[in-house]
Order: sequence, then structure tokens, then C-alpha cells
Amino acid sequence: MTHPSGNESQAGRAPGPVPGRRFPLTIGALGEFGLIARLTAGLPADPDVLVGVGDDCAVLEVGGEEVLLATCDAQLDGQHFLRHVATPEQIGRRAMAVNLSDIASMGGTPRFALVSLLLSPDLPATLLDGVYAGLRREATRYGASIVGGNVIAAPDLLGIDITVLGQARREQVLLRRGARPGDALLVTGTLGEAAAGLHLLLHPALAVPEDVAAPLKAAQLMPVPRVPEGRVLARLGVVTAMLDISDGLAGDLGHLCAQSQVGARLDQAVLPISAATQAAARLAGQSALEWALYGGEDYQLLLTAPPDVVPRIKELLWLATGTPVTTIGEILPPEAGMLLCLPDGTMQPLAARGWDHLRGH
Amino acid sequence: MTHPSGNESQAGRAPGPVPGRRFPLTIGALGEFGLIARLTAGLPADPDVLVGVGDDCAVLEVGGEEVLLATCDAQLDGQHFLRHVATPEQIGRRAMAVNLSDIASMGGTPRFALVSLLLSPDLPATLLDGVYAGLRREATRYGASIVGGNVIAAPDLLGIDITVLGQARREQVLLRRGARPGDALLVTGTLGEAAAGLHLLLHPALAVPEDVAAPLKAAQLMPVPRVPEGRVLARLGVVTAMLDISDGLAGDLGHLCAQSQVGARLDQAVLPISAATQAAARLAGQSALEWALYGGEDYQLLLTAPPDVVPRIKELLWLATGTPVTTIGEILPPEAGMLLCLPDGTMQPLAARGWDHLRGH
Repeated sequence: MTHPSGNESQAGRAPGPVPGRRFPLTIGALGEFGLIARLTAGLPADPDVLVGVGDDCAVLEVGGEEVLLATCDAQLDGQHFLRHVATPEQIGRRAMAVNLSDIASMGGTPRFALVSLLLSPDLPATLLDGVYAGLRREATRYGASIVGGNVIAAPDLLGIDITVLGQARREQVLLRRGARPGDALLVTGTLGEAAAGLHLLLHPALAVPEDVAAPLKAAQLMPVPRVPEGRVLARLGVVTAMLDISDGLAGDLGHLCAQSQVGARLDQAVLPISAATQAAARLAGQSALEWALYGGEDYQLLLTAPPDVVPRIKELLWLATGTPVTTIGEILPPEAGMLLCLPDGTMQPLAARGWDHLRGH
Repeated sequence: MTHPSGNESQAGRAPGPVPGRRFPLTIGALGEFGLIARLTAGLPADPDVLVGVGDDCAVLEVGGEEVLLATCDAQLDGQHFLRHVATPEQIGRRAMAVNLSDIASMGGTPRFALVSLLLSPDLPATLLDGVYAGLRREATRYGASIVGGNVIAAPDLLGIDITVLGQARREQVLLRRGARPGDALLVTGTLGEAAAGLHLLLHPALAVPEDVAAPLKAAQLMPVPRVPEGRVLARLGVVTAMLDISDGLAGDLGHLCAQSQVGARLDQAVLPISAATQAAARLAGQSALEWALYGGEDYQLLLTAPPDVVPRIKELLWLATGTPVTTIGEILPPEAGMLLCLPDGTMQPLAARGWDHLRGH
């Protein structure tokens, strides 16, 4: 994702130096979103930057019929992927997929990728062969070409930073802003599988049947970027806002609400949580709801649209891609904030917390 | 720079696993260029990728009148910059400048930048303020806008990975290939200053007068991307090949010769080495010639053109930008290889060695 918090409301909350503090303010204390807001505040306006910092991709005017979409995302071993549980090819596929997902979330077509590798010189060459095979396979699958990059030595590190460029018709680009009170809130596929898979990968001793565990681990190791789904949704012309779920449903809904200046209600009873995720949560003594709300890394598309077009969206997306879409709530006026409607109908506030890469929680 | 060795000749030399080897081949043993050749061999053809891996930038068809140029380059503290001698703003300026230089070397106009930061959470926020101010200042100076990026936590690390996108008229893009035997070999500015500056920064006890040391240290800390020079050279329409000097004159001349399938002769007596560099070398007991040939990081433009247009190039570039251009040798047939002509007229082979980021030499 691109800096997801360049919007004014978050920039206004960016912590500054605390008077009387004995130690300098660290970037860890500031947090990912605080730091980004602080660094990118007041970037000069450029008429060819149609959308800059603050959405999944930058939207750039380059003189053609279509606009250019640009996004970058870095992944580090031990943090975004786990070399001891993922194959090299899975590491590569995942690093490319999360970037393709940002293009998908704008309704765009992936075109080109640049790959920066940060590598410990003692890594075996065959590991990199596998990573690169995964990068290439995933890029090719979605129509993107690897066109450049660079390699630098970084002791004890395996890091992959990818920039993906895509294209979209100007009038079809879907942004985080645009949701209106009364819009239905929809999500593709299921929620919480990637978090369930991560839990199973980190706790291999858990007695979970393979038919339950396998799809969940795959969701974590090889997330599927919703590229064809994004394009269909963009062409439909009725979606008012869209983004992909990387930080977690609650966190990413928070980004959508902040950018659209709206509130939202999530209906817990209808969240699409698979039977496998439910079973894994039961066996692991965990909460499937927590995984769905805060787990992140599902890379599903979260979108909003007027209620009357929802049946058409569901039918067409299913026919075109085989991917289900579920209505999971409603967009509310901004003063309502974010709410979770429990199965018994009671409402409780929903914190927009998601993953913060600098704070580590 | 983009992967600089995707050309067939280097790919053909990529080391494979060594039979009978007891330990797996590491990427350190393979080296930067060997690894890149190995990883990028046989990337599928894409008609919209006019130039892919193997030049300073990828050249991409995006449907407009101009083509898109894309490049990425990562810099790490302790390796590409030195936090204990550079100010935060200098670190930012340098990281952006080396990327802008790749756009300059194609004759393009920088347009947009995406910035990935890898940060140890204990870094002070003010350090990042300075780095980002430097990034912004340098981008703005050359007409580029920062449009996105990402931030991830990386313990004990300060890394900056930047992708810069530029544009150029299709027929004006200057590549590493295109040099022909008989062409003159030219370079902008002076050579070896950045290496001299690095030596002085790393040996602060050396007694070198400030008027000698200051411009050399500045050349290392704040290299100047030759963006206006690149555009003038591209518009002239007579340059046959061009690249920027990042790995060192000998190494980058090697890239040009490999891509153009030519040989070259460098004339030692006419290499533009400044009086300050000569003085610093004398005082430090070092060789100014070594710095000029192998030091790297000068970010000057190295170009070739037919001899009859050289006076016009020199005059126009001087008038348009105030930057001098020096003829430093001649392009030879491929069988001549790379030669250094000593001041007494004798020839010796010139190794195309430059910096290898994985081997560290």
C-alpha cells in the first residue's frame, strides 16, 4: 500500500515532539501512520498527481488515455513472511501478490514491476532462484512484467521491496474516498483466513485436521490478489469507494471512513467467516471474530455501493469471476463513528485499530 | 540503476552450481551481476517493455506520446551513506539524487517518486524529518513529486529504497547500446571527486586544507544528478549511447561496451581530474587515477557520439547548462576490448571492474 494516512484528519492528529520529554521522540513511538503523516504533510501540489499519498496507489497523469497507478510495498523475512515455514517460491508469490492487490483495489490492470532485493550475502543462490520464480509466476499470472530492480547486500536480511505500476481508465479509478451514508458495505471472499493460517503455522503442535489447516495456511502464504474482481467492479461504474484489506477489516474500514469522511456499521452476524476458520479457532482456543476484524492480510476487496445496485454487483461478480461478495454493513454519517452490531442487535464502538508496522501491534 | 546486466553476454557467463561443491553456492559468491543475470534470464517478452532489465531505466509503453522511464535504487546506512558523517538532509538528498541520475542518463525528465523506508523503531523522529526534507528538496529541484511509498520496521537499519518514474520522447531515449567504433567517448564534469571525498570523510585526521576537502566531501555527500545535461544531450539527437557513472568509470564503460558490443580506449592523460582531487590524492598518499577509474559514485554522464559532432555537443552543453564535457577516449571494435592509453602512449588492458554490492569489492 502507499502511505495510507496522508489525509488531513490523520495528519492533524500527528504527534509532534512532547514538551518536557527527556528522550527524543522515536519513530517507534510515533507509529507508522503518525510518521507518514508527519513526513508527508504539505507535499507540494502537482497537477499531474491526481491522487498522491493517502490511497492504495498513486494515480498519475502521464499523457495517455489511461492514468498510471503506482504502489510499492516492502516485505521482510520474520515480519511479513516466515522463511522457516514458507517455500522460497511462496515468499516471492506473496511479495508480488500484496502489491498486485493494491492495483486491484483501484480497479486497475497491473502492467510492470520493479524488484529491489536486500540480501544477506550468505544466502544460498537456490533460495533466490525460488523467490524470483515466485515473483515471476505471480506477476505473469496477472499480466505484469518485471522490468527492473536492484540488489544490495544487507547482512542477516532477506527483504523484498516491489513497485508495481498499473493502468486504468481515468473515470473508472476507485478510491478510498467516495463512500456516502446509506451505501452498503461489501467484501469479497472470506475474512480471517490469513490470520487463522498464521496462527496454525506458528503453532505446528496444534491438532488441526489437514483439510481444515491446508486452505488457511495457503491463505496466509499465498494470498490471492483480487485483480479480475477489481476490474469488473471498476467497469460496473457503481462502486463508490474501494480498498484492499491488508491491515485488517477494522483498520482498513477506518481508512475508508477517514478518507470518505463517513461512519460505518459492521454487522457481526453476517461476516463471511469460513467453516475452516471457525473450526481452527475452536481447536486453537482463539476467536474467529478477532481474526476477521483485526487479523489482516486477507487481501480481499472492501467496497461500498448504493443498496439498489448490490444485487447486480453480486450477480455480475459471481458470473465474471466466481468470487462471492457479501454485504457486511452500512455506511453511516460521520458523527456515528464506527460501530459493530452484535448478533443480538446491540451496538458497540469499533476501534479502527489495525497493524502498525513501526509499533509492531 | 536497474539490473545492469541482463544483456545476453553477461547472462551467458552467469555461474551455475559448481559440481562437487561441498557447500551451497551463496549469492555473495555469485556476485551482484551474476545473481541478476541468473534471476532475470528468460523473462518473458512484453511488447510494451521497450527496454527491460539491462539499462539505467526500464523504458515502458503506456499509450501516451511519451514513454515512461522507471528505475529503483536502494541505499543502506553504513554502505551507501554514512550516518555518522552525513546530515539527515544529505542522506535524503543523496538517495533521491542517485535515482534521478538514472533518469538523467536516459535523457528523460523525472516526474514521480515512491519512497520505501526501512527503519529501526528506535531512530529519532527528527532524523527522519531531515531525511525526508532532503528527499523532497532534491525531488522538487528536478521537477519530481513524491507520490507514495511505505514504511516498515527493520531493527538496527536505516534503508531508503526509491523508485523514480520519468518521461521522455520515444525517439530521444538514450540507451547503453548504440555506441559504434569510431565514436568519441565523452564525460561530463570531473572524475574521482566522490571517491576522494569518501576517503577524506573516512580519514578525518588527514591534514587537508578545507578549500581542497570541502568540494570533494560535497561530491560524495551530495552528488548532482545531471538532469538538465541529460535532456539537452537527448534533444541534440546525435548521442549514440549514454549512462551515468555509478559503479566507476571503468565498470560503467564496461557496461556500455557490453551492451553496445564494442571495445573502447581511455586516454589517461585527458581524464578530467580536478586540482582538488589531485591535491587530496597527494596529501593522502592515494592515486587520483584509481579514484577516477574505479571510485564510482561520480554520477557524471558517460556518452558516445560521432567525432564530427563533438564540438557542437561541448559548446551547446556549456551554453545550456554551464557543465563542461571532455573527450576521454574512443570507441573501438569489439575485438579490441577495453584499453587504457598511458600518458607515454603505451596501451594496457583495462579491467571493467566496478563496485559489486554483493561481493563488497
